[in-house]
Amino acid sequence: MKTLGKGTSAIRQLLKERLLCKSEVSCTNPAVLVELARELGLYFDPKDAGLSSLLSKVKEIVESNEVRRLPKIPKGTRDFGKEQMAIRDRAFSIIVGVFKMHGAVGLDTPVFELRETLMGKYGEDSKLIYDLADQGGELCSLRYDLTVPFARYVAMNNINAIKRYQIAKVYRRDNPSKGRYREFYQCDFDVAGQYETMEPDFEVIKVLTELLDGLKIGDYEIKLNHRKLLDGMLEICGVSSEKFRTVCSSIDKLDKQSFEEVKRELVDEKGLSIETAEKIGSFVKQRGRPLELLTDLKSTHSQFLKNSGSVLALNELEILFKALEKSKCLDKVVFDLSLARGLDYYTGVIFEAVFKGSTQVGSIAAGGRYDNLVGMFSGKQVPAVGVSLGIERVFTIMEQLEKDRNQVIRATETQVLVAILGKDLTLAAELTSELWDAKIKAEFGLTKRVMNHIDRAKKSGIPWIVFVGESELNEGIVKLKNIEAHEEHVIRREELVEELQKRLNNA
Amino acid sequence: MKTLGKGTSAIRQLLKERLLCKSEVSCTNPAVLVELARELGLYFDPKDAGLSSLLSKVKEIVESNEVRRLPKIPKGTRDFGKEQMAIRDRAFSIIVGVFKMHGAVGLDTPVFELRETLMGKYGEDSKLIYDLADQGGELCSLRYDLTVPFARYVAMNNINAIKRYQIAKVYRRDNPSKGRYREFYQCDFDVAGQYETMEPDFEVIKVLTELLDGLKIGDYEIKLNHRKLLDGMLEICGVSSEKFRTVCSSIDKLDKQSFEEVKRELVDEKGLSIETAEKIGSFVKQRGRPLELLTDLKSTHSQFLKNSGSVLALNELEILFKALEKSKCLDKVVFDLSLARGLDYYTGVIFEAVFKGSTQVGSIAAGGRYDNLVGMFSGKQVPAVGVSLGIERVFTIMEQLEKDRNQVIRATETQVLVAILGKDLTLAAELTSELWDAKIKAEFGLTKRVMNHIDRAKKSGIPWIVFVGESELNEGIVKLKNIEAHEEHVIRREELVEELQKRLNNA
Repeated sequence: MKTLGKGTSAIRQLLKERLLCKSEVSCTNPAVLVELARELGLYFDPKDAGLSSLLSKVKEIVESNEVRRLPKIPKGTRDFGKEQMAIRDRAFSIIVGVFKMHGAVGLDTPVFELRETLMGKYGEDSKLIYDLADQGGELCSLRYDLTVPFARYVAMNNINAIKRYQIAKVYRRDNPSKGRYREFYQCDFDVAGQYETMEPDFEVIKVLTELLDGLKIGDYEIKLNHRKLLDGMLEICGVSSEKFRTVCSSIDKLDKQSFEEVKRELVDEKGLSIETAEKIGSFVKQRGRPLELLTDLKSTHSQFLKNSGSVLALNELEILFKALEKSKCLDKVVFDLSLARGLDYYTGVIFEAVFKGSTQVGSIAAGGRYDNLVGMFSGKQVPAVGVSLGIERVFTIMEQLEKDRNQVIRATETQVLVAILGKDLTLAAELTSELWDAKIKAEFGLTKRVMNHIDRAKKSGIPWIVFVGESELNEGIVKLKNIEAHEEHVIRREELVEELQKRLNNA
Repeated sequence: MKTLGKGTSAIRQLLKERLLCKSEVSCTNPAVLVELARELGLYFDPKDAGLSSLLSKVKEIVESNEVRRLPKIPKGTRDFGKEQMAIRDRAFSIIVGVFKMHGAVGLDTPVFELRETLMGKYGEDSKLIYDLADQGGELCSLRYDLTVPFARYVAMNNINAIKRYQIAKVYRRDNPSKGRYREFYQCDFDVAGQYETMEPDFEVIKVLTELLDGLKIGDYEIKLNHRKLLDGMLEICGVSSEKFRTVCSSIDKLDKQSFEEVKRELVDEKGLSIETAEKIGSFVKQRGRPLELLTDLKSTHSQFLKNSGSVLALNELEILFKALEKSKCLDKVVFDLSLARGLDYYTGVIFEAVFKGSTQVGSIAAGGRYDNLVGMFSGKQVPAVGVSLGIERVFTIMEQLEKDRNQVIRATETQVLVAILGKDLTLAAELTSELWDAKIKAEFGLTKRVMNHIDRAKKSGIPWIVFVGESELNEGIVKLKNIEAHEEHVIRREELVEELQKRLNNA
């Protein structure tokens, strides 16, 4: 019943009616109150006729689509109003600019996929997938991220190599909280195909730094690790391989929990010995400048040298770090052995961007290498690596920055308001169409009140007003007013477009 | 089972096993065949253990997410690959350009709405709404159009006046056919609020002509009518008012059916007399140049003059037509008394854009005035008028035009390919990062094979290649090659960015 939201008045009415029957009886008598409570209880007995008639009444109201005070939007979703849209457009244009700088092609996939496409990809998080109702035909679910649809696309179209970006909404039935939505944007950049070692991995991380630098949303760092190094570490610590992924999930909590808490989980829930857990602890506390920590981990006393997977990982990381160094963005990267990432499908480099010195927790972008995901669909392995930027938090920061700067966000780009001092629509149509034809962004208004026109222009930041009243019409002129400059010019009607273009181009 | 698509091999295996048991028996004996048929029949008896074990086997395969030959995409949906995305981006940029020319603000709403928001808005078409599964919480459905979410937004935010555009996907569980999808884009422009008569109606139709002119997709006409004129006509013909909407649905089919067919429906299904149906027929065949037909309908012998609703409509249309005439787009409009529009919520001007002289049927854009929709949500009437452009057909036409022009659609904007003749990722990283930093769109490749680099540049239309091999590296130079101009320049390594910028700006 709580899901309906409507029909509250019907419930209230019915309760009131039953209560009124008793209104003659004094309520100071406790027996009456007990009886009343019993009767009210009956409403919640499924067999009670009152309840069933109440339910059908509620159903009727809901289905009749009766006017309610205010309509609602689903929990965890949001509208983007005009100011938010202006900010969003700016953010997307910066982001797409970076993607195009790197020669990525655009891709768009449907908002829902066959349910089987999403199954077995997200581990425990699969419970958060939104399903479409079974209305006959195929079983579908809303996409949970953009990576799995991308892998499905690569497999389905038998693609050997592609560098693509996609900006689109994804859906998670999570508990919505401040700044967390059930429908939210992801901006993804992925490279699939056979390349030289770390070639696309380097570019993906470079793109991530360009995104975060370009958006100008504050200082950040990119925590980076390697799944094969992590697995090697667990092997060295004596964890059996079937526990690798579940132990990783625990380690992944280290950014929010103390090691003591994580250790308790490893011992009590994951069944590791205290020694093993502590050995893991001594490893995962290692973090630092990439090349320095790398040198340390490759030094002769390092336990990693005996583990072939770890050696492979360390060699790959060396190539990656040197490329990032030459690209002047290694200073953004922190080599962090505690980074584990929750998702199952990662197989190599993994990373996560977080804000520095901020009270905000959680990552703003994350990604890694997933060499087996395409193969899960087609049987043909196409290795891939990518990054996903969560943009909602970026919007919030950009909105805050605008507020701090005390800037008015213009939601339109209108250059001219054609202010007709009267009700002559044909005049407005004629004059404004001339401007539109000349590609001048224009709105028009019909009112005798000069101040209404000026207020409207001020409110939406329109720089120019063209006033046309009866006297102007008779004289074949218009009055051109610039709001900010407080200038006013009288212009011959037939020269309006030319004069405006001159002034707009100079601005 | 047909929805699963997987597990076919398990079924085949099981059938084969049971058949093999009988393989020793000669199959020429009809009795054996009968017995075999009976046994096979058992598999489809729900109580049979074989069937239940088969089903659980199929279930297991589906859920284990076993590799299948090729993954699928839901029926009626599509991916937009790189070339389609390039075309789509171009179309959207033209469309958004028109919307911004008119000072419209952007708006985005969630892809799903509370189910109650959509209920009672689409008449019979409500059966095409996609529902989300009930996974606890609110009942939601995918949006069916952008008009109802817009009205919900206006009501929810208590907005008095807004001119907004929205480009977004909508969802209909229709039978997909060529060029018809279950997920498709709509581009909507709507004006809500109190204005002078026909003020926003004029602008909406003007916007529609600018959209169709700007997209350059062929000659079109806009059929236009008025709901109050239509109702007046039906009143004059003696149709009772409760039949207005259902009779309109029949009339609306006149673009696809002959009048004889529609007449049969009006008489046999809608219960009109033959005389009434024929009277309607004599009205709805009237179509022509707006101001001419209007003069005719307003002439002294016109039956409409006795009907107050019709008189109101004719006066409104006169204002509208004169404004459109001054705006030089009335020649695109055909006043057509047979246009009825299926949707219930229209209350005034209605219109539909169709291609002229084309074999394609159906409308490419449509809209009208809906003065009561916002009030259905909030109880407070906010009149509104808008247009919705269906963009999938536009994409198809634009793709065809590109093909006809024999033009290669570039899916990227890359200006330079950094061709490293070897495997040195750090060198590639250093050189390409310099270009990225200078906002030059660049990709890089690592291979000794010169022709591979050239092929790659040609294939994706990259105009410039920078070659760097060992000898170039030693000499501190790079080779700059322009593919189309067949020119090659030797440049000092440190002057690369500057030289490239000079050449790119001149291009």
